[in-house]
Amino acid sequence: MPKVVDHDQRRAELALALWQVIHEQGIDGVTFRAVAQAAGVSVERVQHYFPSKDDLVLHGCRQMVASAVVDHGPPEAPGDPRTAAEELRSLLIGAMSESVDFKIGASVWAAYQSKAASSPGIGAIVTDALAERARALTRLLAGARGRGGREQPAPTSDDRRDALRLAALSEGLTLRVVVGAVRADEARRVIQAEVDRCVNDT
Amino acid sequence: MPKVVDHDQRRAELALALWQVIHEQGIDGVTFRAVAQAAGVSVERVQHYFPSKDDLVLHGCRQMVASAVVDHGPPEAPGDPRTAAEELRSLLIGAMSESVDFKIGASVWAAYQSKAASSPGIGAIVTDALAERARALTRLLAGARGRGGREQPAPTSDDRRDALRLAALSEGLTLRVVVGAVRADEARRVIQAEVDRCVNDT
Repeated sequence: MPKVVDHDQRRAELALALWQVIHEQGIDGVTFRAVAQAAGVSVERVQHYFPSKDDLVLHGCRQMVASAVVDHGPPEAPGDPRTAAEELRSLLIGAMSESVDFKIGASVWAAYQSKAASSPGIGAIVTDALAERARALTRLLAGARGRGGREQPAPTSDDRRDALRLAALSEGLTLRVVVGAVRADEARRVIQAEVDRCVNDT
Repeated sequence: MPKVVDHDQRRAELALALWQVIHEQGIDGVTFRAVAQAAGVSVERVQHYFPSKDDLVLHGCRQMVASAVVDHGPPEAPGDPRTAAEELRSLLIGAMSESVDFKIGASVWAAYQSKAASSPGIGAIVTDALAERARALTRLLAGARGRGGREQPAPTSDDRRDALRLAALSEGLTLRVVVGAVRADEARRVIQAEVDRCVNDT
């Protein structure tokens, strides 16, 4: 039998190496050579999967969005209000910690965000991801508020506004945790309190 | 009389050119040549003021912090609760708009923030600036809550926690405005409502 090469797996490994390079050098510091070195593969191998540096950088951005979705699971019908509230907390607080992995991931995402304004390709991915995150939080908040019982209720404009506030709060706190301006446990407590207030304020 | 050269003015002009380059190319895309071109001066002129690229990039970061302070004025004793509340809103909402200047400024600051985790020099400036911003907001919120009358009251832990929440909320919303995931007027309304709630919740 011929050896089966899992191309998606290879591309995912290269994305991990790319993020390491972006964390250390910024997006504009990305080169095939640096990513190859971080991945422990040849430059030709990287170029086999990604014809251009732009392809590589955009793939890394999409991959980051996709892995956030995989980590948290698809925000589907939450079943009951308690589960919805738990998923809401998970999506907002998630992996927030003092760990190196969290800080690298968050700083790479910050690099993509800061590049979004001047790069249409990255901008489209980031803007879509932020909009989808706001929609997911809106659905979960609507479910957590329990107006629909076990049925997913239609979100109100209050749900949308409060979900946007929760999203922006957790995004702002994440940046403060990454640069060490606030501790992760303090940030988690602030978000937790705000989620509780929002869920109970139906 | 010899011609007086205002060195601070020249350095400020070069910082403006630097920000333009960072907005378009990212921090790691900064070169003496690109900044000289954006400023309409020679490479030698840039190098006369900044011996190294790192000096230039760090100066741009300090200058960004300094001009934010100048824009909003020093957060001193607010005088009376109403003035404190106005200053609080100004510091949080400030120049937030759909203007190109706001978006360039915010995206450059985002670039510095995303670089903070991997560059100790930038990290120190960003972390100090974020900590000072939280302290200023805490003082203003304490004043706006009117516990001290016309005297600046000692901030409580509630003031500190709420000020951190307001800071992170406005920082998160700013990033969403920059990438076009939320409109500036909507972001302003969300912050405004949260300030009102905080000020009245003494």
